[in-house]
Amino acid sequence: MNIILLSGGSGKRLWPLSNEIRSKQFIKIFQKEDGLYESMVQRMYRQIRRVNADATVTVAASRTQVSSIRNQLGSKALISIEPCRRDTFPAIVLASAYLADVEGTDPEESVVVCPVDPYVSEDYFGMLNQLGELAQKGEANLVLMGIKPTYPSEKYGYIIPEGTGEISRVSAFREKPDAETAEAYIARGALWNGGVFAYKLNYILQKAHSLIDFTDYHDLFAKYETLPRISFDCAVAEQEKQIQVMRFAGEWKDLGTWNTLTEAMEETCIGDVRMDETCSNVHVLNEIGIPILAMGLKDVVISASPDGILVSDKEQSSYMKPYVDSIDRQAMFAEKSWGSFRVLDVEPESMTIKVTLNPGHRMNYHSHRNRDEVWTVISGTGRTVVDEMEQSVHPGDVITMQAGCRHTIIAVTELKLIEVQLGKEISVDDKEKFPFEFE
Amino acid sequence: MNIILLSGGSGKRLWPLSNEIRSKQFIKIFQKEDGLYESMVQRMYRQIRRVNADATVTVAASRTQVSSIRNQLGSKALISIEPCRRDTFPAIVLASAYLADVEGTDPEESVVVCPVDPYVSEDYFGMLNQLGELAQKGEANLVLMGIKPTYPSEKYGYIIPEGTGEISRVSAFREKPDAETAEAYIARGALWNGGVFAYKLNYILQKAHSLIDFTDYHDLFAKYETLPRISFDCAVAEQEKQIQVMRFAGEWKDLGTWNTLTEAMEETCIGDVRMDETCSNVHVLNEIGIPILAMGLKDVVISASPDGILVSDKEQSSYMKPYVDSIDRQAMFAEKSWGSFRVLDVEPESMTIKVTLNPGHRMNYHSHRNRDEVWTVISGTGRTVVDEMEQSVHPGDVITMQAGCRHTIIAVTELKLIEVQLGKEISVDDKEKFPFEFE
Repeated sequence: MNIILLSGGSGKRLWPLSNEIRSKQFIKIFQKEDGLYESMVQRMYRQIRRVNADATVTVAASRTQVSSIRNQLGSKALISIEPCRRDTFPAIVLASAYLADVEGTDPEESVVVCPVDPYVSEDYFGMLNQLGELAQKGEANLVLMGIKPTYPSEKYGYIIPEGTGEISRVSAFREKPDAETAEAYIARGALWNGGVFAYKLNYILQKAHSLIDFTDYHDLFAKYETLPRISFDCAVAEQEKQIQVMRFAGEWKDLGTWNTLTEAMEETCIGDVRMDETCSNVHVLNEIGIPILAMGLKDVVISASPDGILVSDKEQSSYMKPYVDSIDRQAMFAEKSWGSFRVLDVEPESMTIKVTLNPGHRMNYHSHRNRDEVWTVISGTGRTVVDEMEQSVHPGDVITMQAGCRHTIIAVTELKLIEVQLGKEISVDDKEKFPFEFE
Repeated sequence: MNIILLSGGSGKRLWPLSNEIRSKQFIKIFQKEDGLYESMVQRMYRQIRRVNADATVTVAASRTQVSSIRNQLGSKALISIEPCRRDTFPAIVLASAYLADVEGTDPEESVVVCPVDPYVSEDYFGMLNQLGELAQKGEANLVLMGIKPTYPSEKYGYIIPEGTGEISRVSAFREKPDAETAEAYIARGALWNGGVFAYKLNYILQKAHSLIDFTDYHDLFAKYETLPRISFDCAVAEQEKQIQVMRFAGEWKDLGTWNTLTEAMEETCIGDVRMDETCSNVHVLNEIGIPILAMGLKDVVISASPDGILVSDKEQSSYMKPYVDSIDRQAMFAEKSWGSFRVLDVEPESMTIKVTLNPGHRMNYHSHRNRDEVWTVISGTGRTVVDEMEQSVHPGDVITMQAGCRHTIIAVTELKLIEVQLGKEISVDDKEKFPFEFE
């Protein structure tokens, strides 16, 4: 079976743990049985693998998310890279064309599409298999998962089924209603539309060719920016007559705000946190290296990352977007395909960064026009290449690089270094990459 | 006139802005007319100077506070250094002996003693002068300031005056009563004991010699550790028959907890802070380089320093001590006589620090047994001395120092550097100082 995982946008409502370059699905907040933490994408991928070890999983993601996906899933998952954001229909078509034209998937095979970010119980994954099998049978062109509502939500779309059975034809779709209308829908057996569905690969490719002028995956990729922003529901689901819905009554939580996200947390505290016994319904997520003490609070979420610190009433936190938009600064932490970096200090004419390289990985071979750099290796071993000169490095070694010089570092073991950047115009854009021929 | 400013202890109830090495009196939270911030000790010193430009001010402080006092007051104030903490009677005797034996103060001159940490209006300083003049007149051996109570506090000691005039003989002292008793005291005209009093220098020296066996200041300093811990009230005030109290009805606030401290703040936010309009009675003090967003909170104080982050109901914050005691870690920020440092990163076998040297200042000439160090100058100019070799330094210069090598840096302009420490046993105690002969 083929599964396309839709990796969503940046999730500003989960600031400061998510930002422009670190989306909410990569935050490690779910504790596993072994005590370690995993992110939404890691949890979803692990759960899929446990139930369906043979599934081909393709993550549909923006270019900026590729480093985080490689960092968190390794090279196991396929990635369909979206050159820019164009809503779910173009994203699903691109990933489907990728499966057909790059991976050579049989057009008669079924594909299950699901978002990467809900918090779900294990039976959800059995249901994904059933959706795929139902699509394969071909009784309908499109098979949706309908989630049994737990309350008359105003945030979700509703699917109105024709009957009350486990599997039913779809009578209609309804967009986010008010609570009263939602209650009436639910009384008629309506289900939440969680954006989970299955089809035969061929079906969506034909649909795509009828709506978009393209030859194959590579052509589609090249003209991706010219595609209209349109959702899969609008472009396909709401037009389709041959459509079924399968009822899902297991656990399903949308984790888009701090209020819902903290509900899904196993523990109240992550990281170095002290909380006194007068706190109630308080969650603290601490990703920075200094302790947090919480006392006498009620219904509050505290979240600290290198980008900032949020202290908010849980309900109120859903209104954070305009405030977060007003915080205009570079991301202070980022995961890269080769490891991660964290900004330690910013001065008008210098910046100090801690760089961690994973074993066997290296940075791009690159140079900067307007800044000198100094590396001090603090742990691990590896080798540097500076203007074609190779050198093995160990803790305590110092490498100085003038502006214009080409440089990289390759980690043998995990390697950490302190990088001091010096110059009048320090910018992430001041970077020229070169081919690396020193493997 | 002579004023002895008693600089108190570490003030753990104001964590994370105060800690073992940074006492509450050195936190810069009071905004001056010019928009800059000053600390309790700077504010108190400035206010004293404004009312009495000629007063000799001696700060009685522990050894660990000397760097901060020099950093904040420069060399203007005298300092009586307590070799260890021994409560107010030994501290006052030591400072008085310092005035007599080191500064050569006439024993007939009056001395006014006051704590460094209350938040007071300007008329308080006129009252200090009056106390000194009254002591000089010699109608009584000891003249106290009695603060007109604003509520029946259970936290303060009370002075019961004989009469109701501005100046009166003292009838009795009463220690922290319950609220009901406090109300009865206040009905009888009782005043708070704020620890402010005046005497002739000779009086306290005679008293000291009758209770402690010592010859002069230097002898007392040498045996300071053997002195009993006893308060001035117990040892002197409560025994004295010839004692007066002068009524003070101006503003006086004890700033010992976050609840009282935030009441004295001019603004609700210090540092990089966003607060939404649903917050009420919220104060945020942000001393770290990342933004804080506060939403939907009520009666909360948020305080962030390199040592940690407090988020607390204001009332509840007064119970923080056991939690703060459980946070066992080195201070991440400190003011030194020559500037300041901040810990940026801690790893098992390395530590990265940002050092700021004030113009014209230098570190001790020193070496470390168990760690190598690397300096990268990020701003300013100066010169280094490494194993007797002098070198002038500028931004971008890197200085590497092996364990055992003697080194220092002298700032010409303000100079900032990144110091990477490398070794298996990094400790603040691993430091040997040497005489510096390269001025």
